[in-house]
Amino acid sequence: MDRAPRGQGPGFAGHRRGRTAATDGGPVGLSTIQNVARATIDPTPLTQVRRHPDRACYERDAIYAILDEGLVCHLGFVAGGRPWVIPTMYARKDDFIYIHGSPASRMLKRSASGANICLTVTLLDGLVLARSVASHSMNYRSVVVIGRAELVKHNDQKLEALRALVDHVIEGRWEDARQPTAKELKATMVLRLNLSQASAKVRQGPPVDSVSDQSLQFWAGEIPIKLRPGKPIPAPGLRDQVSPPSYVRDYHR
Amino acid sequence: MDRAPRGQGPGFAGHRRGRTAATDGGPVGLSTIQNVARATIDPTPLTQVRRHPDRACYERDAIYAILDEGLVCHLGFVAGGRPWVIPTMYARKDDFIYIHGSPASRMLKRSASGANICLTVTLLDGLVLARSVASHSMNYRSVVVIGRAELVKHNDQKLEALRALVDHVIEGRWEDARQPTAKELKATMVLRLNLSQASAKVRQGPPVDSVSDQSLQFWAGEIPIKLRPGKPIPAPGLRDQVSPPSYVRDYHR
Repeated sequence: MDRAPRGQGPGFAGHRRGRTAATDGGPVGLSTIQNVARATIDPTPLTQVRRHPDRACYERDAIYAILDEGLVCHLGFVAGGRPWVIPTMYARKDDFIYIHGSPASRMLKRSASGANICLTVTLLDGLVLARSVASHSMNYRSVVVIGRAELVKHNDQKLEALRALVDHVIEGRWEDARQPTAKELKATMVLRLNLSQASAKVRQGPPVDSVSDQSLQFWAGEIPIKLRPGKPIPAPGLRDQVSPPSYVRDYHR
Repeated sequence: MDRAPRGQGPGFAGHRRGRTAATDGGPVGLSTIQNVARATIDPTPLTQVRRHPDRACYERDAIYAILDEGLVCHLGFVAGGRPWVIPTMYARKDDFIYIHGSPASRMLKRSASGANICLTVTLLDGLVLARSVASHSMNYRSVVVIGRAELVKHNDQKLEALRALVDHVIEGRWEDARQPTAKELKATMVLRLNLSQASAKVRQGPPVDSVSDQSLQFWAGEIPIKLRPGKPIPAPGLRDQVSPPSYVRDYHR
């Protein structure tokens, strides 16, 4: 039986401990019902978190919330016998993750071939400074999704996926921009990956020093970290009368 | 000959164009000199950027600057015939990337086995809104490093690597925390990956709409995005007289 190599979070020196996400295997009886949104994505031997299992989270809402907050995923695939990890944009809609790009992209060609892929989203929430170097860590929320992607072929489904991709990044933008032409749609490959094999890993809260380290005179605590938008920069040549819409002015994540 | 699958940056719908990093293959004569820090990391068939080659960057300083700014990398490896992508902390020191963790971590065990790995760092700089949905994009700087990692065995080299890891995240912290014990050092595995096979991809600047789209009445421009620190949160039980040091109060990236 294969074991999931969820070996690391981005802790920063050696041992790491801390408050972690609640885990909930969910009511066992429900897991036999197909095609019903369950409260958990039940872990499999491949998706179960092995390292720091106390940080594991299998709750569907929590996993989806992380995916919905992220802007970029890192997509892993094997090509030429080697692993590759490429950043790309994504969106979740219902129980699928959508990705897209040029049909000439090897990342997409490999993903469309039915090969296994791994799609990871990481949100960094803070730096965790302990008195001991070895107890330093980071607060983060990450999701790993594995599986085989499938090609989205029909134009109406592709359009819906592209709308999801744009509105995932900036809600409301799809309706307020020039829609894709048939030619543009044809030049875009869209894939989707079922969220049936996914798990999250979460670390939050303060540093955890041993009792003896707690008496040391070093500062300890968290530095919260957040992605923040700056002041919008109008495109050169933007017509004077076009002011930034509210989804631009009030952008936040 | 294998081709590098640098198929995507995190653009957000279909075609993407824009101002991109200068590319410079470097003086050909220098590339035959070994063991001298060269201005470029010459691309190989595996590291050459194929998709959006106008966004490629092979300048060593630029690649190192991206690596030095990032906090988390995404490490790709193959296990059980599948690709896995795990977020982890890293640091660059000279021409190596260091990673670390528990010897029980499969990510580290696989990486230490001599198998090929791929380590990717992505900095998101902004959202790029074009008049046309298909020209939307993101501004980003990413680096992909490939190769085989090697185990850092000697304690003094491990200590130097751990110092690099801590100070990469927060400069000055190593000296201002309790150093690792021999036991903690033994319980931490450290690996390094040579930066001889690395390339960067950079998109910056405004959206690029076709001339006909430029007359459309939609707002277009950039929303800059930056990781920002919040107010430090002292650990519970922190002694009253310990105030946050300047590297905490003035933390920035």
